[in-house]
Amino acid sequence: VFSGGDEGQFRIERITAIAGETLPDAARLHVAQAQEGPWPAFSLRGVVSNERYLTRVEKTALVAVQQPVGGQAARRGAFIPIRKSRAWWDLTQDERRQILEEKSHHIQIGMRALPQVARRLHHCRDLGTPEPFDFLTWFDYRPEDEPLFDDLLGALRATEEWTYVEREVEVRVSRG
Amino acid sequence: VFSGGDEGQFRIERITAIAGETLPDAARLHVAQAQEGPWPAFSLRGVVSNERYLTRVEKTALVAVQQPVGGQAARRGAFIPIRKSRAWWDLTQDERRQILEEKSHHIQIGMRALPQVARRLHHCRDLGTPEPFDFLTWFDYRPEDEPLFDDLLGALRATEEWTYVEREVEVRVSRG
Repeated sequence: VFSGGDEGQFRIERITAIAGETLPDAARLHVAQAQEGPWPAFSLRGVVSNERYLTRVEKTALVAVQQPVGGQAARRGAFIPIRKSRAWWDLTQDERRQILEEKSHHIQIGMRALPQVARRLHHCRDLGTPEPFDFLTWFDYRPEDEPLFDDLLGALRATEEWTYVEREVEVRVSRG
Repeated sequence: VFSGGDEGQFRIERITAIAGETLPDAARLHVAQAQEGPWPAFSLRGVVSNERYLTRVEKTALVAVQQPVGGQAARRGAFIPIRKSRAWWDLTQDERRQILEEKSHHIQIGMRALPQVARRLHHCRDLGTPEPFDFLTWFDYRPEDEPLFDDLLGALRATEEWTYVEREVEVRVSRG
């Protein structure tokens, strides 16, 4: 659960609406395993699940270099909730994979930012309750790696896959 | 939400544990869009979601012949909750697809029972709460098509994919 309000482990540096409606403004971001009551600005839930697109070759390559989120030196981060369009979800698995990797090189682009940028993906589409986003992505990195992270976002937003994003909000944070 | 108890639209004819633990015994099965309080025997939730494995060619073929569940003449049915093993979920997308269709012909076997057997799949893995099953499958058919349905189950349980099933319960029902 990612909640915005007056408390939380992370200071919110800025909230930017990349596509669609923004999120309510908040000073701090609270990241917790479970819902802890209502939050003044926003509260978004997601679950870590199995991977949907990776091949074994790609997973082996990723696992060899990626770092878990939460490392001591990773004092900057970004919380980026995303909703894709109905057109995306109406595609079949082979069509989505084709756009995600063969055309948009999503996995390959992400690999270029490893191991500096750590990422954890949370799914919200199948929670059984109406949710404003399909995914909640959570990244962290050392302050000196922020330009690498900026490039990663720029590259992903220039892809064909990104044309299916109908709502995206970027919440940049600092730990402490 | 599929609930077992003394009430519900369907009479439970029999409950059979195919793998792992069975479900508590109940006289009736209640199928509803939302949770309606605690049920004496069991209450299982799932959500209809996007397809995970179909290619466009397969989806086009399926859509051309399949019927929605709930048809007037389809007075027999089966509610089959399934949990797959950790080993299944640790596979990557390409490995799961390979076992599901290229080796086990799951989609092709299902096609043979169309349009007589209607099916709706519900996912429970990403509900955000601990759930005893990964999927809830719901089938209905006319009484005279029961042997075709029996053959479908037999064929699916003989596949390599099925070796990853660690819990499966078969609840056969009649409408009325």
